[in-house]
Amino acid sequence: MYVILVYDVSVERIDKVRQYLKQYLNWVQNSVFEGEMRRGEIEKIKIGLSKIIKDDEDSIILYTTHNRKWITRKIIGVEKSEIATII
Amino acid sequence: MYVILVYDVSVERIDKVRQYLKQYLNWVQNSVFEGEMRRGEIEKIKIGLSKIIKDDEDSIILYTTHNRKWITRKIIGVEKSEIATII
Repeated sequence: MYVILVYDVSVERIDKVRQYLKQYLNWVQNSVFEGEMRRGEIEKIKIGLSKIIKDDEDSIILYTTHNRKWITRKIIGVEKSEIATII
Repeated sequence: MYVILVYDVSVERIDKVRQYLKQYLNWVQNSVFEGEMRRGEIEKIKIGLSKIIKDDEDSIILYTTHNRKWITRKIIGVEKSEIATII
């Protein structure tokens, strides 16, 4: 599965969320990660993240698709990640 | 086309970018918009945004798919947008 993950998390938990996500996904932009994950890993990070965030304050959205070719990616401005050709 | 747009823009241009995007897409989270757009509209906002942002500092990523059913959307924590069932 290809995952695009965006987060809107209170500043005191951002570092912890980022450190956690870096183990599984590639950082692409402030508050955005992307990457290929198996379904089981996705379930695992859902649980992991729900332990880090405050679920009445923070918000994380996971967009998933079976095939990364179904999503086109276009950048306006600078490419902030080091992985320029991930899709 | 279904669009997920994420931005990482310097603070002095954020309001302008948000106001511009609100005309075309639904705000879903801090620095994330979503919505259905025609291809011509997508080309139009690419031009519009490139006039607002500094292209050597700011970054906007547009993810597009032909069919929104190809993307699954899962939230951890709170739903920040008013449009809870957009995908």
